Amino acid sequence: MENTPRIALVMGDAAGVGAELTAKLLACHDEIRNIRLIVLGDRKLLQNGARIAGVTLDLPVVETAEGLALEPGRPVLLDLQHKDADAIPVGRPTRESGAFAMRNFGAALDLGRTGAIQAICFTPFNKQAFKLAGNPYLDELHWAADRLGAAGRVSEYNRLDDLWNARVTSHIPMAEVPRQLTREAVLEAIFDTDRTLRKAGIAAPRLGIAGYNPHAGEGGLFGREEIDSIEPAIADAAAQGLAVAGPFPADTVWLRAKRGDFDAVVTMYHDQGQIALKLMGFSRGVTILAGLPVPIATPAHGTAYDIAGTGKADLGATLAAFRTAVAFAGNSPPS
Amino acid sequence: MENTPRIALVMGDAAGVGAELTAKLLACHDEIRNIRLIVLGDRKLLQNGARIAGVTLDLPVVETAEGLALEPGRPVLLDLQHKDADAIPVGRPTRESGAFAMRNFGAALDLGRTGAIQAICFTPFNKQAFKLAGNPYLDELHWAADRLGAAGRVSEYNRLDDLWNARVTSHIPMAEVPRQLTREAVLEAIFDTDRTLRKAGIAAPRLGIAGYNPHAGEGGLFGREEIDSIEPAIADAAAQGLAVAGPFPADTVWLRAKRGDFDAVVTMYHDQGQIALKLMGFSRGVTILAGLPVPIATPAHGTAYDIAGTGKADLGATLAAFRTAVAFAGNSPPS
Repeated sequence: MENTPRIALVMGDAAGVGAELTAKLLACHDEIRNIRLIVLGDRKLLQNGARIAGVTLDLPVVETAEGLALEPGRPVLLDLQHKDADAIPVGRPTRESGAFAMRNFGAALDLGRTGAIQAICFTPFNKQAFKLAGNPYLDELHWAADRLGAAGRVSEYNRLDDLWNARVTSHIPMAEVPRQLTREAVLEAIFDTDRTLRKAGIAAPRLGIAGYNPHAGEGGLFGREEIDSIEPAIADAAAQGLAVAGPFPADTVWLRAKRGDFDAVVTMYHDQGQIALKLMGFSRGVTILAGLPVPIATPAHGTAYDIAGTGKADLGATLAAFRTAVAFAGNSPPS
Repeated sequence: MENTPRIALVMGDAAGVGAELTAKLLACHDEIRNIRLIVLGDRKLLQNGARIAGVTLDLPVVETAEGLALEPGRPVLLDLQHKDADAIPVGRPTRESGAFAMRNFGAALDLGRTGAIQAICFTPFNKQAFKLAGNPYLDELHWAADRLGAAGRVSEYNRLDDLWNARVTSHIPMAEVPRQLTREAVLEAIFDTDRTLRKAGIAAPRLGIAGYNPHAGEGGLFGREEIDSIEPAIADAAAQGLAVAGPFPADTVWLRAKRGDFDAVVTMYHDQGQIALKLMGFSRGVTILAGLPVPIATPAHGTAYDIAGTGKADLGATLAAFRTAVAFAGNSPPS
């Protein structure tokens, strides 16, 4: 039992499909049988979710995690004393819907900091609701990094089925990208990706590295980043025993990935991966925040305000996110 | 008859599937019934192609286009006196396979310059064979622009089924892109795209414009090209009556396009479109060179050396390219 994963499941934005998805996941007994699981949110809202989902839940409710001993297959709800969470308007972002998710996520980060849980899974947030609720962070990654006191490189990964995507650069102006594509930065991203996939249980990750310029530069004809940074970084990584290949032109690396050549594609900038993943069906994929003391996974899709309350929310991406969190926790040091 | 399109069909690289595809296309009587068609290449190689394709061809062979009066539905082969074209090694790029395509294409450009034909369709070239044959141009576009004496902006378009893709910038280093994304350049690309699609027979083209930065800049948070150049250019185009929308984040503009929102997507750089098109199946698509006095269309796939001589070459993309050339010619001024 000491080795069973300890997971925090966070109820996300209160106005979307979060409560329904939380309830649906908790009803999957096989998925949580061997998991020590704490749910962070609100009792009434979760009951609402169960009603919408058409499932019956019966889990103990506590008001503090202090001294709580989680047991495998027996999830506990930490009710965070939200005021009238079940009265928050459904179907649109509000200060209240954002504040609800923020408080739950913050409490999960705190549990992560103390080591009470090993990984976090959350149902979707809404950026606008976060802004309305006064969240000063650019995104969840920066918030989590700050709250968890992360020391090294933190980054976002995307996962679609068995294929991962990592980025050397992310939410920065495109004009800044070439300055940040140093040999060191590319190498660091490659190492991080290898390490992250190993932590998620992939024994010997095969990494495909994208180029940056059209046709991967075509031998320096259209830019030199491949020659000056990317190829040397790949050579460095290969010399240290990593399974790396590339640089491949951005428009063909995904065809290779799609046919199964790689476990992860390392891209140089945000849209190089996002264009491909969204076309391949990323709304059923998973977003992962890694490099933190506590790995975090969430479905890639949003709050789905348009179908909130209908019972139509698809559990697929949330289940994939939950399993990713479990895989990370299963490879964490036992406590 | 004066209005029937006049098309040049160019036999491409001699070592690939070009002869087979040419023969297969010529055997599609319904496709060429109303076309005045001149084929540029070699008699023996075309016979080879017909044998490989399993079709029977019977078209008159001429050795000069001087004084030639093309008739609808009665294609003519202009035999360019290649020496032993049918003896060129199959399945790999050679100086000879490249020189064969170069001479045919050059002759078609000359026919275009004199007005003898209105549009060109060619079966695939091979860049390496062109280099071996001493072609000094970066690509076909620059060659054609030079030979045809094009005055204005020339550019490459891609077409996949009914969806077109245009680029503001193309084969340049990514680090150069932000400098070239001026309001004027974006506007010019939008106008060119509108004009090109109209010339191809689309009455009121609906254009979706991609952003440049992640999330299309998210209000200036990740770069200002959207605010400084792209949005003003879209506003300019809209003010002049064009059906433009955007800027859309690069990773969602393709989802919109896929569901049919646009006739064309205007992208800011090469891979923004190529990643998407290749994933959507661009090998069955068409590459178009426009802004020239004579529009040029070719299948997006390559010479397919690996299946040369087997009869397995799929005519789909070549037929789509041919129809695109015909559509351009049908909208040209009659002669």
